[in-house]
Amino acid sequence: MTNLSQALLNPRRIALIGASADQARLTARPQRYLRRHGYTGALFAVNPRSPTLLGQPAFATLDAIPGEIDFAYILLGTEAVEAQVAACAARRIPVACILADGFAEAGPEGQALQARVVAVARAGGMRLLGPNSMGVVNLRARTALTTNAALEAESLVAGRVALVSQSGSMMGALLSRGAARGLGFSHLIGTGNEADLTAGEIASMLLDDADVDVICLFLEALRAPEHLAAAARKAHALGKPIIALKLGRSPFGAELATSHTGALAGSDAAAAAFFRAHGILRVTMLEALLELPALVAGQRPPPRTHRAVGVMTTTGGGGALAVDALGVLGIEARKPDASAAALLDAEKLPHHGRLLDMTLAGTRPDRVMAGLAGLRAAHDTDLVLAVVGSSAQFRPKDAVGGIIEGAKITGKPVAVFLAPEAEASLRLLAEAGIAAFRTPEGAADAIRAFCDWRAPMQAPPAETPNITVPEAPDEAAARALFAHLGLPSDAVVMRHDAPPGLRYPVALKILSPDLPHKTDVGGVTLHIADAETLTHEAAAMRARVAAAAPEARLTGWLVQPMARGLAEAILGFRRDPEVGPVVLLGAGGVLAELHRDITLRLAPVDLATAREMIGEVLGLKPLTGWRNLPLGDLEALALAVVAVSRLAALEGIAEAEINPLIIGRAGEGVTVADAWVVCRAAFPSPATVAV
Amino acid sequence: MTNLSQALLNPRRIALIGASADQARLTARPQRYLRRHGYTGALFAVNPRSPTLLGQPAFATLDAIPGEIDFAYILLGTEAVEAQVAACAARRIPVACILADGFAEAGPEGQALQARVVAVARAGGMRLLGPNSMGVVNLRARTALTTNAALEAESLVAGRVALVSQSGSMMGALLSRGAARGLGFSHLIGTGNEADLTAGEIASMLLDDADVDVICLFLEALRAPEHLAAAARKAHALGKPIIALKLGRSPFGAELATSHTGALAGSDAAAAAFFRAHGILRVTMLEALLELPALVAGQRPPPRTHRAVGVMTTTGGGGALAVDALGVLGIEARKPDASAAALLDAEKLPHHGRLLDMTLAGTRPDRVMAGLAGLRAAHDTDLVLAVVGSSAQFRPKDAVGGIIEGAKITGKPVAVFLAPEAEASLRLLAEAGIAAFRTPEGAADAIRAFCDWRAPMQAPPAETPNITVPEAPDEAAARALFAHLGLPSDAVVMRHDAPPGLRYPVALKILSPDLPHKTDVGGVTLHIADAETLTHEAAAMRARVAAAAPEARLTGWLVQPMARGLAEAILGFRRDPEVGPVVLLGAGGVLAELHRDITLRLAPVDLATAREMIGEVLGLKPLTGWRNLPLGDLEALALAVVAVSRLAALEGIAEAEINPLIIGRAGEGVTVADAWVVCRAAFPSPATVAV
Repeated sequence: MTNLSQALLNPRRIALIGASADQARLTARPQRYLRRHGYTGALFAVNPRSPTLLGQPAFATLDAIPGEIDFAYILLGTEAVEAQVAACAARRIPVACILADGFAEAGPEGQALQARVVAVARAGGMRLLGPNSMGVVNLRARTALTTNAALEAESLVAGRVALVSQSGSMMGALLSRGAARGLGFSHLIGTGNEADLTAGEIASMLLDDADVDVICLFLEALRAPEHLAAAARKAHALGKPIIALKLGRSPFGAELATSHTGALAGSDAAAAAFFRAHGILRVTMLEALLELPALVAGQRPPPRTHRAVGVMTTTGGGGALAVDALGVLGIEARKPDASAAALLDAEKLPHHGRLLDMTLAGTRPDRVMAGLAGLRAAHDTDLVLAVVGSSAQFRPKDAVGGIIEGAKITGKPVAVFLAPEAEASLRLLAEAGIAAFRTPEGAADAIRAFCDWRAPMQAPPAETPNITVPEAPDEAAARALFAHLGLPSDAVVMRHDAPPGLRYPVALKILSPDLPHKTDVGGVTLHIADAETLTHEAAAMRARVAAAAPEARLTGWLVQPMARGLAEAILGFRRDPEVGPVVLLGAGGVLAELHRDITLRLAPVDLATAREMIGEVLGLKPLTGWRNLPLGDLEALALAVVAVSRLAALEGIAEAEINPLIIGRAGEGVTVADAWVVCRAAFPSPATVAV
Repeated sequence: MTNLSQALLNPRRIALIGASADQARLTARPQRYLRRHGYTGALFAVNPRSPTLLGQPAFATLDAIPGEIDFAYILLGTEAVEAQVAACAARRIPVACILADGFAEAGPEGQALQARVVAVARAGGMRLLGPNSMGVVNLRARTALTTNAALEAESLVAGRVALVSQSGSMMGALLSRGAARGLGFSHLIGTGNEADLTAGEIASMLLDDADVDVICLFLEALRAPEHLAAAARKAHALGKPIIALKLGRSPFGAELATSHTGALAGSDAAAAAFFRAHGILRVTMLEALLELPALVAGQRPPPRTHRAVGVMTTTGGGGALAVDALGVLGIEARKPDASAAALLDAEKLPHHGRLLDMTLAGTRPDRVMAGLAGLRAAHDTDLVLAVVGSSAQFRPKDAVGGIIEGAKITGKPVAVFLAPEAEASLRLLAEAGIAAFRTPEGAADAIRAFCDWRAPMQAPPAETPNITVPEAPDEAAARALFAHLGLPSDAVVMRHDAPPGLRYPVALKILSPDLPHKTDVGGVTLHIADAETLTHEAAAMRARVAAAAPEARLTGWLVQPMARGLAEAILGFRRDPEVGPVVLLGAGGVLAELHRDITLRLAPVDLATAREMIGEVLGLKPLTGWRNLPLGDLEALALAVVAVSRLAALEGIAEAEINPLIIGRAGEGVTVADAWVVCRAAFPSPATVAV
């Protein structure tokens, strides 16, 4: 452990700046909680108005504290923070944590204040946790350095799962929910605004702790994705999974996360692509966040998954409920394959269909073990879900004993869903380290995350395209860029007269860096039959456009053969404010737009990923030979996706799009029918897209 | 109450046929549970091998029991059931309940056995509950007439919510989950296979009970939809809501429900249409099934809803989690409108954006009441969700006291989501009759159901079309049927030569009752320019089709003008095996098919419903003036939907489809481009579609 991580995660000398003498106040909590839960290090309360606090001598100022300090928790109001950060930095304290809010999330003034506070800390070589941080709890070291009321609990359960949460209150909610289930944490860390220390950096530090097996993240926004990506790679190398629950799946939620944290919201699809690419398990339900650690601790992602499970049950209705919840998320409950069936037959366990119904076989532990062993032997499932009925409520040891014994044998992961209210069974399963769910939806959410889990992606070799793009590119410049990336254009720039050697009919478009929507100003004419018409139409178009958009710079015309193909696609690149460069592929046309038939990945991508993306766009399915329709040149499309994704390396490019990209028959390639590029300088506020 | 409902729901003289002397056995449970929970009526155990059972004299046969019997629970194995049903019927017992399985769900033999058992009962004027029924629990009368192990509980909480469950085990699971929350039931009834008594009939009886406010249904299949529809109308008249959780949302779940219950599965979309049409609230999560009664008890569906809620919170992260979960289901957390804002301002409660964050205002009950009153005053929301943070765990009375007091004032419904584990707060809220959720997903599921809730639909006046359709209709017959319904055809039947007066170009199709897919056998030719070509092509087509499908009856050709329009639709009618006649509308074309861009309703529909359906098909949006595209004749389309939905009244029609229906510009109408009809006699097994 570094000095920083030692000071942050296991501080031995703590200053509480602004600790209150009034025990009922929030700011008295850290001192109370540290004592209550048995903190063994040194504690220094700073309060100029109280000589003693909770019976201990207090200090009038930070400087009055003798010796080194590992960690200062600044509990004062927003207006007092800046001076205290400066004082901490002056004392060379490695980490200060800020409780107050009113920083980046509170508008421009708060943003400026936050920037100043960070600058002061950095100048002094000090790291900051927060603002808006509820502090750090290290349950193994009994360090409850927090304002979170969940620490009012009389006793705490220590475990091997660390939680990093941007929300202080959810940190407490998860602690209490876990405790009620017998699930403990190793650490709870509230990162708040992450003005300096980010969830990713802290996750990296936690991974070094031998007492941490799994890291859970509760995120409102993705900040510093490169830190989180580095943590994810480290986690994979160490075999310590990272699980994330991130808000913003709905537009309303995304808007709220933004206003709540002061961060810019990216798209949820981009966040999903980020988690997937970096091997982070993403869940959507609190129950899944709490239970999934038991399912994945000590494991690495399987090389491939079947997105299928075996299900055994002692309740028909409960089993069906679980199968349905799984099916809604696209996970199939599969009937036993030949290997599984052979084992079940040998044990005289009747089976047919998607549920191994143990009701008739009896729920004796040895029978349950046999059923479990049978289903785990299947070669076409990823795990086994055991559903338990009323016995879980009244005979917990019988009901889950067989599952617990069976799960001790090495093999496919086992998870449990309990249909009735069954606290004792839940507790037995928690003690045995088996993921056990109260809701079929929570089980399905966790199982889906498990089935989607992949090793962190290797970014394809980064090769920066050697090309300069004008600050205000017109379509010709955009086409030149795409041509450089390997997507040649068959359009010709016309500055005055019709160029020779054109293959008619052609399309004519006005060229301007100021007109992304040429059609709206009469800047596009299709099906021009010959050179004479072309010359005539070019002049007419220039006059038309100049009248419609008098301030637009007109740089010429673009002439291109009328392209025909089987279908159209949209191929785009942009920098997501949260996760950075992404490449998007969608079906073209009005209907595809209405259906939001789009997939995306972190850019750049390799050819295999590009092919995977093509498979995810429903509107491209007709090109795959579906219903005997002609095959499209999907290989050329995949190469185009790879090419466009390489824009990630061109820092100056903010956004780019080919729309439509026309897909020819197999072997005919693809044609860039329209293209545009936006440079970063052209963005209203370039700072907002910088990572 | 009728004699039947008295005997079923509140039996005073019960026979337990096959009660076991071995207390550990399932079949000993009813006797044990009836005693344990204080049944005050007369109990007669029938067991030829034991003179006494649980210390009471037993009877060797049913006939040995003196006096009347209200209810006989047959606890014997499948093979003994038929004889016992006959014995019960002979004694004129009003209701017998069958525990055994192995009937309709077990294949043809079981189906035959079930049919015989029902016939025997009906012949004796006796009604049957089950097979596969866990019996009847009347908690208010302390009648625990069940084999369900959940009754092992030492005490039971009686409430005003009745549960009817096709799954016996889920009946117990819901009882135990409710009890843990302090939520009691009035009745629990396991209907199993519903060979005779259906969930709908039983719901109707329960509605007559003054102690029942709400009915919850746990359904694996929809049987006898007319019974359930009648119950729903009665429920609406009485202001007693019905809430349903039905399995089968995923294909795997639907398959399982089928194999588990022996019922034929219809589509989930049809089930959803059924619930919606009849004013039944549909939820998907167990928590929503348990909590929604508190939200809707004593209410009728609002005339319209905003699909929007106000949200107040004492936890930023927890509030954001709830807003996100709601947003995923399409429910907007809306910021206070002018009325709400005025009240909040008057109380000096700061508000901005979608969350009324009470963290700063303090969580004192009077402040919470003021916040609640403010949000409830909004005119553009349907209810208020209060999210509570850590105070719910450690200061339950403070945390939820304000909510409980505030909710006593008449106004918009109030629901609560508790972010931490907070049993005491949950219990206080349950006692106060306020819906309180542990999961944001459960809250969102219940709130969505509430927002979707509508009064039962009035079926449009039923007017049976007076037309006879041939048993094996070809396309000409199908077109004649649609023309009779008001959708004229511009196609002409050709028996030999080209008919005079055609408007060329035309399309030519082979006519045959045996060839639904004419294209596959070369039976369609488009763009025929003149009469000579037509005559020649007709002969060639006949030869081609005869060669490709030698057994098909060829009845002539159909000639129709080449139709053009703005877009294509699919308009269909079928009889869903669960809910009966439905009308489907979808966008035409390959992409729409890939996206399953379809909506459906119970048939027949009125014009308003048809217009609503058009609004739900994404692929028809371009016809609404979207992006300045030309307007389509959606009024003609709506009339076509109404016309096709009238097929519901023609009992002989199994399925019908117009695909494509070509939609012209506004005022141009719609054109039937292809049509087919399947008569019910042509179905492989007509009985399976009978309701």
